[in-house]
Amino acid sequence: MVKLGIDLMGGDQAPSAVMEGLTRVWYHLQPETSISLYGTKEALALVPDSPRLEKIVCSDYIAMDEHPVKALQQKKDSTLLRAFADAANQKISAVASAGHSGAIMVASMQILGLIDGISRPVVLSVFPKINDKPLVVLDVGINVDCKAEQFLEFARMGSIYADKVLGISQPKVSLLNSGTEKSKGSLLYQKAHSLLAEYSAIHFEGNIEPRDLFDNEVDVLVCDGFTGNIVLKEVEAFFSLSQKLGLEHSFLEQLNYENHGGSPILGVKGNVILAHGASGPEAIKNMILSAESIALANFVSQLSSI
Amino acid sequence: MVKLGIDLMGGDQAPSAVMEGLTRVWYHLQPETSISLYGTKEALALVPDSPRLEKIVCSDYIAMDEHPVKALQQKKDSTLLRAFADAANQKISAVASAGHSGAIMVASMQILGLIDGISRPVVLSVFPKINDKPLVVLDVGINVDCKAEQFLEFARMGSIYADKVLGISQPKVSLLNSGTEKSKGSLLYQKAHSLLAEYSAIHFEGNIEPRDLFDNEVDVLVCDGFTGNIVLKEVEAFFSLSQKLGLEHSFLEQLNYENHGGSPILGVKGNVILAHGASGPEAIKNMILSAESIALANFVSQLSSI
Repeated sequence: MVKLGIDLMGGDQAPSAVMEGLTRVWYHLQPETSISLYGTKEALALVPDSPRLEKIVCSDYIAMDEHPVKALQQKKDSTLLRAFADAANQKISAVASAGHSGAIMVASMQILGLIDGISRPVVLSVFPKINDKPLVVLDVGINVDCKAEQFLEFARMGSIYADKVLGISQPKVSLLNSGTEKSKGSLLYQKAHSLLAEYSAIHFEGNIEPRDLFDNEVDVLVCDGFTGNIVLKEVEAFFSLSQKLGLEHSFLEQLNYENHGGSPILGVKGNVILAHGASGPEAIKNMILSAESIALANFVSQLSSI
Repeated sequence: MVKLGIDLMGGDQAPSAVMEGLTRVWYHLQPETSISLYGTKEALALVPDSPRLEKIVCSDYIAMDEHPVKALQQKKDSTLLRAFADAANQKISAVASAGHSGAIMVASMQILGLIDGISRPVVLSVFPKINDKPLVVLDVGINVDCKAEQFLEFARMGSIYADKVLGISQPKVSLLNSGTEKSKGSLLYQKAHSLLAEYSAIHFEGNIEPRDLFDNEVDVLVCDGFTGNIVLKEVEAFFSLSQKLGLEHSFLEQLNYENHGGSPILGVKGNVILAHGASGPEAIKNMILSAESIALANFVSQLSSI
């Protein structure tokens, strides 16, 4: 039985997209799952009541263009701060928002705190492959200036996620790189390769080139947050291109972020799902389902120390 | 009137793919263009004679898995060394090879030499866009550990290439980055953005995110060689995926490296085209046509000092 904290005010299309996403998601949730919905009085008044829904009235919210640290300091009764405070006090099992990614990141670190052995949080994304198996990719956004040692944290957290949330035992880990040889890539990637190869807590299989992104036998792919974000956004370019060209295939739908359900933030003492700022109702529905999956897997307790 | 130096022994499928590419290319070349073909005696014996073809018999060639510096020191009569020596002596107007990229890079620097004002060579690739205009992207492979100042060299060389080879006057330049705001990306990218914004010799239009890779109004996109190589190889992943899914569209063919004709190496005192190691006959044909374009544009003289 889990209770999910949802930010009604988060995202470019909030609150309407969140309300519509919520309407669509009930049918798909486990019968015991309930929701705490954080919104302003005006926005919450438009949401139908339900025995499985608790409305948390907040006086404020953090807009998409605010300075994250300042906003968190000043807006104590904002939806994000209230949701993170409830997660820290274990009143809810997960927080999910399509709101300000910087503010969500800072709140994750400051209010939930980093777990032991982790130097920085990380954003994870699951990519589709043509063999129908998922590919866990991290970091896809936060750590744009990485140290090689952080790749070990990414590999370890990604492996635990693949195992506990996706059910892949002994997941295979690769390093995304510009060539398959260990001498390839920047100095950072050469060092990361050496560290990963020596690290016995994971199953390291060497480098993978981006040309094999959709067709490989690896379960977890690690990279720095700048490269990961570039790779993720190039997938969006392909999806957008395929739509403009009128291409149709069920696999292409898996490249649509709307169908992904947001990205888990790992490394903090709580379950957090960050969705795309542009999320529409379908993306919000999937974000809530992702929050439920990660909460049911009790993922954070698996990661309490790595 | 140009004479193109072609390496018969370069590439995974050499010499047969080069021979077949040569057969296909004659029809498309300018009537005055001639070719110097560098090969072993055995390989050259299989190539039909032509008044526009000079066969240069070499005793050796550099294999794909050799150490580039050692191979260049030891194999003085190899096809690559002979071709670069002829280019340095201006016996030929361009060198084109699908051979060992590291050896081609080292030969470019050591035998042709860097042009004034350039700290390192750079590899350029032309990406297709849905508006049918080309997008010049550089660096796509060499400078995996870049300094921010090098982005200015990329921007300047890319702009001259767009102008002189592609006929785009006053080309617009953007920085590939994880967000459009100038504060986005790694410290390297933040510094590169500042330098590009202050650099009056180019027309800088700010950052572009990879999600807009195929749909933008920019002519030249700059990035470090690691990121550029990752982005280039992810395009290959998408082409490969589209083939496996059975997708068909003329635009997709433009994502196929076989149709690209190799990548110019800029910043050295000579015209050099590097093709994909896996090049088949069609890729070789297009490599030779690229070498002719760059030689006819007399690109190197435009870049003699930047």
